[in-house]
Amino acid sequence: MSIQKMVLELAEKAKAAAHTLPLLSTGQKNHCLLAMAEALGKKTKIILRENKKDLTLAEQAGLPRAFLDRLQLTEKTLAEMAQGLREVVQLPDPVGEVTGLWLRPNGLQVGRMRIPLGVIGFIYEARPNVTVDAAGLCLKSGNAVILKGGSEALQSNRILGQILQEALIRAEVHPGALQVVPTTDREATTELLKLEEYIDLIIPRGGEGLIRTVTAQSRIPVLKHYKGVCHIFVDQGADLTLAENVSLNAKVQRPGVCNAMETLLVHRQAAPKFLPKMIKRFREAGVEIRGCPATLKIVGGGKGIIPAREADWYEEYLDLILAVRVVKDLDEAVRHIQRYGSQHTEAIITQDYTRARQFLQAVNSSVVLVNASTRFNDGNQLGLGAEIGISTSKLHAFGPMGLNELTTTKFIVFGQGQIRS
Amino acid sequence: MSIQKMVLELAEKAKAAAHTLPLLSTGQKNHCLLAMAEALGKKTKIILRENKKDLTLAEQAGLPRAFLDRLQLTEKTLAEMAQGLREVVQLPDPVGEVTGLWLRPNGLQVGRMRIPLGVIGFIYEARPNVTVDAAGLCLKSGNAVILKGGSEALQSNRILGQILQEALIRAEVHPGALQVVPTTDREATTELLKLEEYIDLIIPRGGEGLIRTVTAQSRIPVLKHYKGVCHIFVDQGADLTLAENVSLNAKVQRPGVCNAMETLLVHRQAAPKFLPKMIKRFREAGVEIRGCPATLKIVGGGKGIIPAREADWYEEYLDLILAVRVVKDLDEAVRHIQRYGSQHTEAIITQDYTRARQFLQAVNSSVVLVNASTRFNDGNQLGLGAEIGISTSKLHAFGPMGLNELTTTKFIVFGQGQIRS
Repeated sequence: MSIQKMVLELAEKAKAAAHTLPLLSTGQKNHCLLAMAEALGKKTKIILRENKKDLTLAEQAGLPRAFLDRLQLTEKTLAEMAQGLREVVQLPDPVGEVTGLWLRPNGLQVGRMRIPLGVIGFIYEARPNVTVDAAGLCLKSGNAVILKGGSEALQSNRILGQILQEALIRAEVHPGALQVVPTTDREATTELLKLEEYIDLIIPRGGEGLIRTVTAQSRIPVLKHYKGVCHIFVDQGADLTLAENVSLNAKVQRPGVCNAMETLLVHRQAAPKFLPKMIKRFREAGVEIRGCPATLKIVGGGKGIIPAREADWYEEYLDLILAVRVVKDLDEAVRHIQRYGSQHTEAIITQDYTRARQFLQAVNSSVVLVNASTRFNDGNQLGLGAEIGISTSKLHAFGPMGLNELTTTKFIVFGQGQIRS
Repeated sequence: MSIQKMVLELAEKAKAAAHTLPLLSTGQKNHCLLAMAEALGKKTKIILRENKKDLTLAEQAGLPRAFLDRLQLTEKTLAEMAQGLREVVQLPDPVGEVTGLWLRPNGLQVGRMRIPLGVIGFIYEARPNVTVDAAGLCLKSGNAVILKGGSEALQSNRILGQILQEALIRAEVHPGALQVVPTTDREATTELLKLEEYIDLIIPRGGEGLIRTVTAQSRIPVLKHYKGVCHIFVDQGADLTLAENVSLNAKVQRPGVCNAMETLLVHRQAAPKFLPKMIKRFREAGVEIRGCPATLKIVGGGKGIIPAREADWYEEYLDLILAVRVVKDLDEAVRHIQRYGSQHTEAIITQDYTRARQFLQAVNSSVVLVNASTRFNDGNQLGLGAEIGISTSKLHAFGPMGLNELTTTKFIVFGQGQIRS
């Protein structure tokens, strides 16, 4: 069968499933999620065997250790994936909720009912755990999902998809609700991205390259973030100990993720007192500093402290590197963020009531914080219960996306024969 | 200046404005809207003079009467446009509203604040009144807008844009908030659709051809509906007088619009009694009937009653033509809608409580009605206050779009030094 035909068949099956999923009760969906969790436990051996095949090929291809780590499944990670499914059972079902029901002058009663989006295409890189996470969240929100994982994880994703689908069928859910694209061929992705009549949303997760390719090719709406160039602005009169602790956490607690701080902006009044201690702590944590001239003037040059180039302000290092800039005031900090930022996550450290409000209003990033670490841009941390990704697209979802963000609302109208005149 | 450079400059100016607009108070925006309304009144003569140029060219080009009617401005339509701006003043300002503010176990206070989308590209066909409507709604929602109207309305749109922009400047609003693309060159649209770094949303309004072209070319999210193939299902045991009145209204009150009914589905138990009278009324109103075999069997053939072909079930006639099909039951009606519909607007006419609920749940169109006309799919009619268009895209907005749909929400977080561990 041609790739084109195979992908079309997946899409048709997904759409058929999407007509049935909104009608499932919360109980039916939860029953199915538990069956999926149980199946992962029962089939651990066969999953690890298939995963081993992927690992062997990846080792032979000489892929780096960090990559192999992400690819590898263990009894522990499988148990965590099953636990993740059980946690989704506990989350409230978004489908069917009616938000408001207002009365029009002509007696029409109008409301909005939350419904699934329909069919979601999920395109991601190496981690096979995403297969299970995405399957659980899509099922609970009543969406059919087509999963296209990284080529290096093909055998792992196929067996996971097969086991989860068997659980679906046992729970009498339409098998089109969850399908794994059974090929590594890139043409499959290209074909998938054309099927706007079948697929309602594409979510890519992975490096900026993958996301840019998907966005450029897709005729279907895409929710994504390209990168997170996150800022902290330490204001004049900030609590400097708090500023140090939060800044250190934002940079070093997990430097390789999108909500880690990449640029530190410091008010010029605060800089002389704040920067020497702060940069000493960063250096002790192994952070390389790329400083503006004023920063270097205050802390001097030396090992691991080098001048920043213009390109540094745009950079998402995802590493123990930090750009540091001294700014004149709040306005200059905001303008810097507007110019170089990625609308992902920004924080102000301040004790000043007015400037806290000004920063919250002027900075339109997906998460804007006062006196807290940028690392809190995360669905679980902000209380959404689970997260399928972070969007900086503004349309539909802006920030971490939970179950609600996998739904839309339709208008429902109750009348007794109203007509328009 | 090249088209490319010209469009880029517009976009840069719009983005600069978009940084300032979220900070305007409701009072400033309302003051500006009133200044715009006043300017339209004062400059009536010059607007009508420029509109006359467009009309003369359109007449010379032999464009149809209906087209000329849509293009023509009069003192009355200008007064209505000004009145429209004054009505936007009365609408609540969506920007800055915080929906919820919840407390996390670690003491973080988390909420969602409504903010403008940023820059909106509005691409539309002949009616110059859209220029003013869109300008008003975008300003009130804090968005900068770039307007690209139909080539036949160029002089009208230029003068309207110029007058509105002068009013903006007098009200001390950034002039980039409202710009009209001053050319009929299609290359301008093509260039606009590439500028994803500057423009957050494209809204096309016009025929299906325009909308498909824009969607295919755009790298920017597009909110749109291609067409409205709207259905009414007359259930077994429906109030047949109510069914007749609602169906007649949905078809003939304004047949050329997207929320007019295009296909009537009738339960086979209701058909023998309902269809003869109903179709007589349609025929008296000049409606041509394309019936399924069962329909023709009940009402006979004859003048204006012909057999439906398969293609009729997909058709958006936008005219006094109606497809009619007798169905076995609610399920068959729902399957027909899922297969042939456009997710725009569907209604059930029923007295049965259970089937009313089933229809509301199973049909996932942007507006689903019980015992009311499909013509109510409209922002004003449903109580949104104003409408900038109707979306059947599901993502971001599904159904009529008012001021809220021109905004998004960012997360705001208040901490006192929280870090992640």
